[in-house]
Amino acid sequence: MHGQRVTINPLVSCGECPACKRGQENLCPHRQIISMPPREGAFADYVTMPERNLVAVPDDVALETAALAEPLAVSWHAVRLGMAALGDSPANRALVIGGGAIGVAAALALRAFGVHDVMVLEPNPLRLAYLRDRTDLAVGLPEAAGRDYDITVDAVGYDATRASASDATRPGGAIVHVGLGGGAAGLDIRRLTLQEITFIGTYTYTMQDFRDTCAAIFDGRLGPLDWIETRPLADGAAAFADIRAGRTAAPKIILKP
Amino acid sequence: MHGQRVTINPLVSCGECPACKRGQENLCPHRQIISMPPREGAFADYVTMPERNLVAVPDDVALETAALAEPLAVSWHAVRLGMAALGDSPANRALVIGGGAIGVAAALALRAFGVHDVMVLEPNPLRLAYLRDRTDLAVGLPEAAGRDYDITVDAVGYDATRASASDATRPGGAIVHVGLGGGAAGLDIRRLTLQEITFIGTYTYTMQDFRDTCAAIFDGRLGPLDWIETRPLADGAAAFADIRAGRTAAPKIILKP
Repeated sequence: MHGQRVTINPLVSCGECPACKRGQENLCPHRQIISMPPREGAFADYVTMPERNLVAVPDDVALETAALAEPLAVSWHAVRLGMAALGDSPANRALVIGGGAIGVAAALALRAFGVHDVMVLEPNPLRLAYLRDRTDLAVGLPEAAGRDYDITVDAVGYDATRASASDATRPGGAIVHVGLGGGAAGLDIRRLTLQEITFIGTYTYTMQDFRDTCAAIFDGRLGPLDWIETRPLADGAAAFADIRAGRTAAPKIILKP
Repeated sequence: MHGQRVTINPLVSCGECPACKRGQENLCPHRQIISMPPREGAFADYVTMPERNLVAVPDDVALETAALAEPLAVSWHAVRLGMAALGDSPANRALVIGGGAIGVAAALALRAFGVHDVMVLEPNPLRLAYLRDRTDLAVGLPEAAGRDYDITVDAVGYDATRASASDATRPGGAIVHVGLGGGAAGLDIRRLTLQEITFIGTYTYTMQDFRDTCAAIFDGRLGPLDWIETRPLADGAAAFADIRAGRTAAPKIILKP
Protein backbone atom coordinates (compact mmCIF):
# COMPACT_ATOMS: atom_id res chain seq x y z
CA MET A 1 0.00 0.00 0.00
CA HIS A 2 3.05 2.20 -0.55
CA GLY A 3 2.18 5.88 -0.90
CA GLN A 4 -1.53 5.41 -0.21
CA ARG A 5 -3.55 7.58 2.13
CA VAL A 6 -4.67 5.27 4.93
CA THR A 7 -6.41 5.24 8.26
CA ILE A 8 -5.08 2.90 10.91
CA ASN A 9 -6.78 0.31 13.06
CA PRO A 10 -4.57 0.75 16.12
CA LEU A 11 -5.56 -2.59 17.69
CA VAL A 12 -2.97 -5.23 16.89
CA SER A 13 -3.86 -8.82 17.71
CA CYS A 14 -2.05 -12.14 17.34
CA GLY A 15 -4.32 -13.63 14.69
CA GLU A 16 -3.85 -17.13 16.05
CA CYS A 17 -5.67 -17.43 19.37
CA PRO A 18 -9.26 -18.72 19.62
CA ALA A 19 -10.64 -15.17 20.05
CA CYS A 20 -8.82 -13.94 16.92
CA LYS A 21 -9.89 -17.00 14.95
CA ARG A 22 -13.54 -16.32 15.68
CA GLY A 23 -13.17 -12.65 14.74
CA GLN A 24 -13.10 -11.25 18.26
CA GLU A 25 -9.64 -9.68 17.92
CA ASN A 26 -10.48 -7.24 20.69
CA LEU A 27 -10.50 -10.16 23.16
CA CYS A 28 -7.09 -11.45 22.05
CA PRO A 29 -5.00 -11.99 25.19
CA HIS A 30 -2.01 -10.56 23.30
CA ARG A 31 -3.80 -7.45 22.04
CA GLN A 32 -1.75 -4.27 21.75
CA ILE A 33 -2.94 -0.77 21.02
CA ILE A 34 -0.89 1.90 19.36
CA SER A 35 -0.18 4.64 21.93
CA MET A 36 0.16 2.18 24.80
CA PRO A 37 3.22 0.03 25.65
CA PRO A 38 4.77 -1.70 23.77
CA ARG A 39 3.49 0.49 20.91
CA GLU A 40 3.89 3.98 22.34
CA GLY A 41 4.22 7.01 20.13
CA ALA A 42 1.10 7.61 18.06
CA PHE A 43 2.13 11.24 17.54
CA ALA A 44 5.40 10.28 15.86
CA ASP A 45 6.10 11.17 12.22
CA TYR A 46 6.32 7.48 11.33
CA VAL A 47 4.78 4.41 12.93
CA THR A 48 4.99 0.76 11.93
CA MET A 49 1.75 -1.23 11.70
CA PRO A 50 0.80 -4.60 10.21
CA GLU A 51 -0.60 -4.06 6.71
CA ARG A 52 -3.88 -5.75 7.69
CA ASN A 53 -4.49 -2.84 10.07
CA LEU A 54 -4.52 -0.26 7.24
CA VAL A 55 -7.64 0.89 5.42
CA ALA A 56 -7.19 2.97 2.25
CA VAL A 57 -9.00 6.32 2.33
CA PRO A 58 -10.84 7.43 -0.83
CA ASP A 59 -9.60 10.67 -2.43
CA ASP A 60 -12.80 12.55 -1.59
CA VAL A 61 -12.54 11.88 2.16
CA ALA A 62 -10.41 14.27 4.21
CA LEU A 63 -7.72 12.73 6.41
CA GLU A 64 -9.17 14.67 9.37
CA THR A 65 -12.40 12.74 8.84
CA ALA A 66 -10.67 9.40 8.30
CA ALA A 67 -8.73 9.98 11.53
CA LEU A 68 -12.04 9.60 13.40
CA ALA A 69 -12.24 5.93 12.45
CA GLU A 70 -10.97 4.72 15.82
CA PRO A 71 -13.50 6.38 18.15
CA LEU A 72 -16.25 5.79 15.62
CA ALA A 73 -15.36 2.10 15.52
CA VAL A 74 -15.49 1.87 19.33
CA SER A 75 -19.05 3.18 19.26
CA TRP A 76 -20.06 1.16 16.21
CA HIS A 77 -18.94 -2.00 17.99
CA ALA A 78 -20.74 -1.03 21.22
CA VAL A 79 -23.98 -0.33 19.37
CA ARG A 80 -23.71 -3.57 17.40
CA LEU A 81 -23.41 -5.57 20.63
CA GLY A 82 -26.33 -3.68 22.17
CA MET A 83 -28.56 -4.33 19.17
CA ALA A 84 -27.60 -8.02 19.22
CA ALA A 85 -28.51 -8.23 22.92
CA LEU A 86 -32.01 -6.97 22.19
CA GLY A 87 -32.56 -9.75 19.66
CA ASP A 88 -36.11 -9.59 18.35
CA SER A 89 -37.20 -7.12 20.98
CA PRO A 90 -37.71 -3.56 19.68
CA ALA A 91 -34.93 -0.95 19.47
CA ASN A 92 -36.61 2.34 18.70
CA ARG A 93 -35.42 4.67 21.45
CA ALA A 94 -31.87 5.06 22.69
CA LEU A 95 -30.12 7.16 25.30
CA VAL A 96 -26.45 8.09 25.10
CA ILE A 97 -24.79 9.32 28.28
CA GLY A 98 -21.86 11.59 27.44
CA GLY A 99 -21.36 13.97 24.54
CA GLY A 100 -17.69 13.27 23.91
CA ALA A 101 -16.42 11.62 20.75
CA ILE A 102 -17.55 8.14 21.87
CA GLY A 103 -21.01 9.37 22.85
CA VAL A 104 -21.60 11.39 19.70
CA ALA A 105 -20.28 8.52 17.61
CA ALA A 106 -22.62 6.12 19.45
CA ALA A 107 -25.58 8.35 18.61
CA LEU A 108 -24.56 8.39 14.95
CA ALA A 109 -23.98 4.63 14.93
CA LEU A 110 -27.40 4.05 16.51
CA ARG A 111 -28.95 5.99 13.63
CA ALA A 112 -26.94 3.99 11.12
CA PHE A 113 -28.35 0.84 12.78
CA GLY A 114 -31.89 2.17 12.35
CA VAL A 115 -32.57 3.69 15.78
CA HIS A 116 -33.77 7.20 15.04
CA ASP A 117 -35.04 8.42 18.40
CA VAL A 118 -31.71 9.08 20.12
CA MET A 119 -31.08 11.42 23.05
CA VAL A 120 -27.56 12.50 24.08
CA LEU A 121 -26.85 13.73 27.63
CA GLU A 122 -23.95 16.10 28.29
CA PRO A 123 -23.34 18.09 31.49
CA ASN A 124 -20.81 20.61 30.10
CA PRO A 125 -22.76 23.66 28.80
CA LEU A 126 -19.93 24.57 26.41
CA ARG A 127 -20.05 21.11 24.79
CA LEU A 128 -23.84 21.06 24.85
CA ALA A 129 -24.09 24.37 22.99
CA TYR A 130 -21.53 23.17 20.43
CA LEU A 131 -23.46 19.95 19.77
CA ARG A 132 -26.72 21.89 19.38
CA ASP A 133 -25.03 24.21 16.93
CA ARG A 134 -23.02 21.73 14.89
CA THR A 135 -25.12 18.55 14.83
CA ASP A 136 -28.78 17.66 14.44
CA LEU A 137 -28.68 15.35 17.48
CA ALA A 138 -31.18 15.73 20.33
CA VAL A 139 -28.99 16.78 23.25
CA GLY A 140 -29.75 17.77 26.82
CA LEU A 141 -28.42 18.07 30.34
CA PRO A 142 -28.35 14.85 32.43
CA GLU A 143 -31.55 15.94 34.21
CA ALA A 144 -33.39 15.58 30.90
CA ALA A 145 -32.70 11.84 30.71
CA GLY A 146 -36.23 10.47 30.74
CA ARG A 147 -36.93 6.75 30.95
CA ASP A 148 -37.92 3.60 29.13
CA TYR A 149 -35.12 3.49 26.56
CA ASP A 150 -34.52 0.25 24.66
CA ILE A 151 -30.76 0.82 24.70
CA THR A 152 -28.64 3.07 26.89
CA VAL A 153 -25.00 3.66 25.98
CA ASP A 154 -22.91 4.74 28.94
CA ALA A 155 -20.02 6.50 27.23
CA VAL A 156 -18.69 7.87 30.50
CA GLY A 157 -18.52 5.02 33.02
CA TYR A 158 -18.81 6.56 36.46
CA ASP A 159 -21.03 5.47 39.35
CA ALA A 160 -23.45 8.31 38.60
CA THR A 161 -23.80 7.47 34.92
CA ARG A 162 -24.33 3.76 35.66
CA ALA A 163 -27.05 4.77 38.12
CA SER A 164 -28.70 6.91 35.43
CA ALA A 165 -28.45 4.09 32.92
CA SER A 166 -30.01 1.64 35.38
CA ASP A 167 -32.95 3.97 35.82
CA ALA A 168 -33.44 4.99 32.20
CA THR A 169 -33.43 1.57 30.53
CA ARG A 170 -36.71 -0.27 29.98
CA PRO A 171 -37.47 -3.81 31.20
CA GLY A 172 -35.71 -6.23 28.87
CA GLY A 173 -33.46 -3.45 27.55
CA ALA A 174 -29.68 -3.21 27.34
CA ILE A 175 -27.06 -0.97 28.91
CA VAL A 176 -23.91 -0.81 26.80
CA HIS A 177 -20.97 0.24 28.95
CA VAL A 178 -18.12 1.64 26.93
CA GLY A 179 -16.79 4.19 29.42
CA LEU A 180 -13.88 3.61 31.78
CA GLY A 181 -14.51 6.56 34.07
CA GLY A 182 -13.98 4.60 37.25
CA GLY A 183 -15.66 3.22 40.34
CA ALA A 184 -17.53 -0.06 40.62
CA ALA A 185 -20.90 1.11 41.92
CA GLY A 186 -24.00 2.72 40.47
CA LEU A 187 -25.71 -0.26 38.87
CA ASP A 188 -29.13 -0.99 40.32
CA ILE A 189 -28.54 -4.74 40.53
CA ARG A 190 -32.01 -5.45 41.89
CA ARG A 191 -33.74 -3.59 39.06
CA LEU A 192 -31.45 -5.17 36.46
CA THR A 193 -32.44 -8.59 37.79
CA LEU A 194 -36.17 -8.07 38.32
CA GLN A 195 -36.55 -6.27 34.98
CA GLU A 196 -34.07 -8.40 32.99
CA ILE A 197 -31.83 -5.58 31.90
CA THR A 198 -28.58 -6.69 30.30
CA PHE A 199 -25.33 -4.86 31.08
CA ILE A 200 -22.77 -5.28 28.32
CA GLY A 201 -19.14 -4.40 28.82
CA THR A 202 -17.56 -3.35 25.52
CA TYR A 203 -14.00 -2.54 24.55
CA THR A 204 -12.61 -1.34 21.24
CA TYR A 205 -13.78 -3.25 18.12
CA THR A 206 -13.14 -6.21 15.93
CA MET A 207 -11.27 -5.97 12.65
CA GLN A 208 -14.58 -6.30 10.84
CA ASP A 209 -16.16 -3.54 12.94
CA PHE A 210 -13.28 -1.26 12.02
CA ARG A 211 -13.69 -1.96 8.31
CA ASP A 212 -17.50 -1.58 8.53
CA THR A 213 -17.06 1.73 10.31
CA CYS A 214 -14.65 2.99 7.63
CA ALA A 215 -17.16 2.02 4.95
CA ALA A 216 -19.88 3.94 6.82
CA ILE A 217 -17.61 6.98 7.16
CA PHE A 218 -16.74 6.89 3.49
CA ASP A 219 -20.32 6.53 2.21
CA GLY A 220 -21.73 9.19 4.53
CA ARG A 221 -23.87 6.98 6.78
CA LEU A 222 -22.34 8.60 9.85
CA GLY A 223 -23.11 12.14 8.71
CA PRO A 224 -20.77 15.00 7.86
CA LEU A 225 -18.45 14.32 10.86
CA ASP A 226 -17.62 18.00 11.13
CA TRP A 227 -17.87 18.18 14.94
CA ILE A 228 -14.09 18.37 15.27
CA GLU A 229 -11.60 21.10 16.00
CA THR A 230 -8.21 21.13 14.30
CA ARG A 231 -5.07 22.40 16.05
CA PRO A 232 -1.34 22.24 15.27
CA LEU A 233 0.45 19.21 16.69
CA ALA A 234 2.85 21.62 18.43
CA ASP A 235 -0.09 22.75 20.62
CA GLY A 236 -0.95 19.18 21.59
CA ALA A 237 -0.06 19.46 25.26
CA ALA A 238 -2.34 22.50 25.64
CA ALA A 239 -5.12 20.60 23.89
CA PHE A 240 -4.91 17.75 26.41
CA ALA A 241 -4.94 20.29 29.27
CA ASP A 242 -8.03 21.95 27.80
CA ILE A 243 -9.80 18.59 27.50
CA ARG A 244 -9.07 17.68 31.10
CA ALA A 245 -10.29 21.10 32.27
CA GLY A 246 -13.53 20.86 30.29
CA ARG A 247 -12.60 23.88 28.18
CA THR A 248 -13.08 22.26 24.79
CA ALA A 249 -16.39 22.61 22.98
CA ALA A 250 -15.77 20.11 20.21
CA PRO A 251 -15.97 16.40 21.15
CA LYS A 252 -12.70 15.72 19.32
CA ILE A 253 -9.55 17.67 18.60
CA ILE A 254 -7.46 16.65 15.61
CA LEU A 255 -3.78 17.52 15.88
CA LYS A 256 -2.08 18.23 12.55
CA PRO A 257 1.70 18.14 12.06
CA MET B 1 -58.95 -29.76 32.21
CA HIS B 2 -61.33 -30.92 34.93
CA GLY B 3 -59.92 -33.73 37.07
CA GLN B 4 -56.49 -33.73 35.38
CA ARG B 5 -53.22 -33.83 37.26
CA VAL B 6 -51.51 -30.54 36.44
CA THR B 7 -48.50 -28.46 37.33
CA ILE B 8 -48.98 -24.72 37.54
CA ASN B 9 -47.12 -21.85 35.96
CA PRO B 10 -47.55 -19.38 38.83
CA LEU B 11 -46.72 -16.32 36.72
CA VAL B 12 -49.92 -14.65 35.53
CA SER B 13 -49.55 -11.93 32.92
CA CYS B 14 -52.04 -9.68 31.11
CA GLY B 15 -51.58 -11.18 27.64
CA GLU B 16 -52.14 -7.83 25.96
CA CYS B 17 -49.13 -5.58 26.62
CA PRO B 18 -46.21 -5.36 24.16
CA ALA B 19 -44.05 -7.62 26.38
CA CYS B 20 -46.76 -10.31 26.52
CA LYS B 21 -47.38 -10.02 22.79
CA ARG B 22 -43.76 -10.72 22.01
CA GLY B 23 -43.69 -13.70 24.39
CA GLN B 24 -41.85 -11.99 27.24
CA GLU B 25 -44.66 -12.50 29.76
CA ASN B 26 -42.15 -12.20 32.60
CA LEU B 27 -41.66 -8.52 31.69
CA CYS B 28 -45.40 -7.75 31.72
CA PRO B 29 -45.92 -4.65 33.86
CA HIS B 30 -49.03 -6.30 35.31
CA ARG B 31 -47.35 -9.61 36.15
CA GLN B 32 -48.55 -11.42 39.26
CA ILE B 33 -47.08 -14.47 40.94
CA ILE B 34 -49.01 -16.94 42.98
CA SER B 35 -47.87 -16.66 46.62
CA MET B 36 -47.40 -12.89 46.41
CA PRO B 37 -50.16 -10.22 46.65
CA PRO B 38 -52.71 -10.16 45.12
CA ARG B 39 -52.41 -13.96 44.72
CA GLU B 40 -51.34 -15.05 48.20
CA GLY B 41 -51.95 -18.54 49.45
CA ALA B 42 -50.06 -21.13 47.43
CA PHE B 43 -50.39 -23.62 50.30
CA ALA B 44 -54.18 -23.51 50.21
CA ASP B 45 -56.22 -26.61 49.34
CA TYR B 46 -57.65 -24.87 46.28
CA VAL B 47 -56.26 -22.05 44.14
CA THR B 48 -57.70 -20.39 41.04
CA MET B 49 -55.45 -19.99 38.00
CA PRO B 50 -56.05 -19.14 34.34
CA GLU B 51 -56.30 -22.36 32.33
CA ARG B 52 -53.40 -21.28 30.10
CA ASN B 53 -51.14 -21.55 33.18
CA LEU B 54 -51.82 -25.27 33.62
CA VAL B 55 -49.68 -28.03 32.15
CA ALA B 56 -51.02 -31.59 32.28
CA VAL B 57 -48.70 -34.09 33.96
CA PRO B 58 -48.28 -37.53 32.36
CA ASP B 59 -49.34 -40.51 34.48
CA ASP B 60 -45.80 -41.78 34.84
CA VAL B 61 -44.49 -38.54 36.36
CA ALA B 62 -44.89 -38.10 40.12
CA LEU B 63 -46.55 -34.91 41.31
CA GLU B 64 -43.53 -34.28 43.58
CA THR B 65 -41.41 -34.16 40.42
CA ALA B 66 -43.88 -32.02 38.49
CA ALA B 67 -43.97 -29.58 41.41
CA LEU B 68 -40.36 -28.70 40.59
CA ALA B 69 -41.43 -27.10 37.33
CA GLU B 70 -41.27 -23.55 38.70
CA PRO B 71 -37.67 -23.47 39.98
CA LEU B 72 -36.56 -25.56 37.01
CA ALA B 73 -38.19 -23.05 34.63
CA VAL B 74 -36.42 -20.14 36.34
CA SER B 75 -33.08 -21.81 35.66
CA TRP B 76 -34.02 -22.99 32.17
CA HIS B 77 -34.88 -19.40 31.24
CA ALA B 78 -31.67 -18.05 32.79
CA VAL B 79 -29.53 -20.56 30.91
CA ARG B 80 -31.37 -19.88 27.66
CA LEU B 81 -30.61 -16.15 27.96
CA GLY B 82 -26.99 -16.87 28.81
CA MET B 83 -26.56 -19.15 25.80
CA ALA B 84 -28.17 -16.54 23.54
CA ALA B 85 -25.78 -13.87 24.86
CA LEU B 86 -22.79 -15.99 23.84
CA GLY B 87 -24.06 -16.19 20.27
CA ASP B 88 -21.52 -18.02 18.12
CA SER B 89 -18.86 -17.91 20.78
CA PRO B 90 -18.22 -21.27 22.51
CA ALA B 91 -20.15 -22.49 25.56
CA ASN B 92 -18.32 -25.53 26.84
CA ARG B 93 -17.60 -24.73 30.49
CA ALA B 94 -20.02 -23.29 33.00
CA LEU B 95 -19.90 -22.34 36.66
CA VAL B 96 -22.97 -22.28 38.88
CA ILE B 97 -22.68 -20.36 42.15
CA GLY B 98 -25.09 -21.78 44.70
CA GLY B 99 -26.31 -25.35 45.23
CA GLY B 100 -29.94 -24.57 46.05
CA ALA B 101 -32.80 -25.55 43.81
CA ILE B 102 -32.10 -22.74 41.31
CA GLY B 103 -28.40 -23.55 41.15
CA VAL B 104 -28.86 -27.31 40.78
CA ALA B 105 -31.57 -26.72 38.20
CA ALA B 106 -29.26 -24.34 36.30
CA ALA B 107 -26.58 -27.03 36.18
CA LEU B 108 -29.10 -29.53 34.83
CA ALA B 109 -30.43 -27.00 32.32
CA LEU B 110 -26.90 -26.22 31.14
CA ARG B 111 -26.43 -29.92 30.40
CA ALA B 112 -29.74 -30.04 28.58
CA PHE B 113 -28.47 -27.11 26.46
CA GLY B 114 -25.30 -29.07 25.63
CA VAL B 115 -22.82 -27.66 28.18
CA HIS B 116 -21.36 -30.73 29.83
CA ASP B 117 -18.47 -29.30 31.86
CA VAL B 118 -20.43 -27.73 34.73
CA MET B 119 -19.14 -26.92 38.20
CA VAL B 120 -21.48 -26.10 41.11
CA LEU B 121 -20.24 -24.13 44.13
CA GLU B 122 -21.91 -24.53 47.51
CA PRO B 123 -20.57 -23.31 50.88
CA ASN B 124 -22.81 -25.41 53.16
CA PRO B 125 -21.04 -28.74 53.87
CA LEU B 126 -24.36 -30.45 54.60
CA ARG B 127 -25.75 -29.47 51.18
CA LEU B 128 -22.45 -30.22 49.48
CA ALA B 129 -22.35 -33.76 50.84
CA TYR B 130 -25.97 -34.32 49.83
CA LEU B 131 -25.31 -33.16 46.25
CA ARG B 132 -22.23 -35.39 46.01
CA ASP B 133 -24.27 -38.31 47.24
CA ARG B 134 -27.49 -37.80 45.29
CA THR B 135 -26.42 -36.26 41.97
CA ASP B 136 -23.63 -36.75 39.48
CA LEU B 137 -22.84 -33.04 39.37
CA ALA B 138 -19.33 -31.72 39.95
CA VAL B 139 -19.68 -29.76 43.19
CA GLY B 140 -17.19 -27.94 45.40
CA LEU B 141 -16.68 -25.25 48.00
CA PRO B 142 -16.53 -21.64 46.72
CA GLU B 143 -12.71 -21.70 46.98
CA ALA B 144 -12.68 -24.33 44.21
CA ALA B 145 -14.21 -21.93 41.67
CA GLY B 146 -11.44 -21.80 39.09
CA ARG B 147 -11.56 -19.42 36.13
CA ASP B 148 -12.21 -18.95 32.46
CA TYR B 149 -15.81 -20.16 32.35
CA ASP B 150 -17.91 -19.34 29.27
CA ILE B 151 -21.02 -18.85 31.42
CA THR B 152 -21.37 -18.23 35.12
CA VAL B 153 -24.80 -18.49 36.72
CA ASP B 154 -25.02 -16.54 39.97
CA ALA B 155 -27.91 -18.29 41.70
CA VAL B 156 -27.28 -16.45 44.96
CA GLY B 157 -26.92 -12.74 44.20
CA TYR B 158 -24.77 -11.26 46.95
CA ASP B 159 -21.80 -8.92 46.61
CA ALA B 160 -19.41 -11.84 47.24
CA THR B 161 -20.95 -14.08 44.58
CA ARG B 162 -21.00 -11.27 41.99
CA ALA B 163 -17.31 -10.71 42.75
CA SER B 164 -16.62 -14.42 42.23
CA ALA B 165 -18.60 -14.41 39.00
CA SER B 166 -16.66 -11.36 37.73
CA ASP B 167 -13.41 -13.16 38.35
CA ALA B 168 -14.39 -16.61 37.06
CA THR B 169 -15.91 -15.65 33.70
CA ARG B 170 -13.73 -15.58 30.60
CA PRO B 171 -13.30 -12.59 28.26
CA GLY B 172 -16.40 -12.36 26.10
CA GLY B 173 -18.35 -14.61 28.48
CA ALA B 174 -21.65 -14.09 30.26
CA ILE B 175 -22.72 -13.79 33.88
CA VAL B 176 -26.35 -14.77 34.35
CA HIS B 177 -27.70 -13.21 37.53
CA VAL B 178 -30.76 -14.98 38.83
CA GLY B 179 -30.23 -14.47 42.55
CA LEU B 180 -31.81 -11.74 44.63
CA GLY B 181 -29.57 -12.07 47.66
CA GLY B 182 -29.03 -8.38 48.09
CA GLY B 183 -26.50 -5.56 47.87
CA ALA B 184 -25.48 -3.69 44.77
CA ALA B 185 -21.72 -4.21 44.76
CA GLY B 186 -19.34 -6.99 43.81
CA LEU B 187 -19.24 -6.64 40.05
CA ASP B 188 -15.79 -5.84 38.70
CA ILE B 189 -17.02 -3.16 36.32
CA ARG B 190 -13.58 -2.47 34.92
CA ARG B 191 -12.94 -6.12 34.08
CA LEU B 192 -16.43 -6.53 32.64
CA THR B 193 -15.74 -3.57 30.35
CA LEU B 194 -12.16 -4.34 29.31
CA GLN B 195 -12.95 -8.03 28.78
CA GLU B 196 -16.44 -7.58 27.33
CA ILE B 197 -18.26 -9.70 29.86
CA THR B 198 -22.04 -9.44 29.69
CA PHE B 199 -24.09 -9.33 32.89
CA ILE B 200 -27.65 -10.54 32.35
CA GLY B 201 -30.37 -9.92 34.87
CA THR B 202 -32.98 -12.69 34.69
CA TYR B 203 -36.31 -13.14 36.41
CA THR B 204 -38.75 -16.05 36.25
CA TYR B 205 -39.57 -17.37 32.73
CA THR B 206 -41.77 -16.95 29.74
CA MET B 207 -44.82 -19.11 29.11
CA GLN B 208 -42.84 -20.96 26.44
CA ASP B 209 -39.91 -21.53 28.82
CA PHE B 210 -42.31 -23.03 31.34
CA ARG B 211 -43.77 -25.40 28.75
CA ASP B 212 -40.31 -26.31 27.43
CA THR B 213 -39.16 -27.03 30.97
CA CYS B 214 -42.16 -29.27 31.62
CA ALA B 215 -41.41 -31.17 28.42
CA ALA B 216 -37.78 -31.62 29.56
CA ILE B 217 -38.93 -32.82 32.99
CA PHE B 218 -41.36 -35.29 31.45
CA ASP B 219 -38.91 -36.78 28.93
CA GLY B 220 -36.06 -37.08 31.43
CA ARG B 221 -33.69 -34.49 29.97
CA LEU B 222 -33.27 -32.91 33.42
CA GLY B 223 -32.32 -36.17 35.09
CA PRO B 224 -34.10 -38.14 37.82
CA LEU B 225 -34.91 -34.99 39.88
CA ASP B 226 -34.67 -36.96 43.10
CA TRP B 227 -32.72 -34.35 45.05
CA ILE B 228 -35.78 -33.40 47.05
CA GLU B 229 -37.02 -34.08 50.54
CA THR B 230 -40.72 -34.60 51.25
CA ARG B 231 -42.35 -33.44 54.49
CA PRO B 232 -45.95 -33.11 55.66
CA LEU B 233 -47.54 -29.73 54.97
CA ALA B 234 -48.29 -29.49 58.70
CA ASP B 235 -44.53 -29.23 59.30
CA GLY B 236 -44.13 -26.42 56.78
CA ALA B 237 -43.18 -23.70 59.27
CA ALA B 238 -40.38 -25.86 60.65
CA ALA B 239 -39.17 -26.54 57.10
CA PHE B 240 -38.85 -22.82 56.38
CA ALA B 241 -36.99 -22.35 59.67
CA ASP B 242 -34.60 -25.17 58.76
CA ILE B 243 -33.95 -23.62 55.34
CA ARG B 244 -33.15 -20.22 56.82
CA ALA B 245 -30.82 -21.80 59.38
CA GLY B 246 -28.96 -23.82 56.75
CA ARG B 247 -30.04 -27.11 58.31
CA THR B 248 -31.53 -28.68 55.17
CA ALA B 249 -29.40 -30.97 53.06
CA ALA B 250 -31.74 -31.26 50.07
CA PRO B 251 -31.96 -28.22 47.74
CA LYS B 252 -35.76 -28.43 47.78
CA ILE B 253 -38.38 -29.50 50.28
CA ILE B 254 -41.75 -30.60 48.96
CA LEU B 255 -44.63 -30.16 51.41
CA LYS B 256 -47.44 -32.69 51.02
CA PRO B 257 -50.94 -32.17 52.41
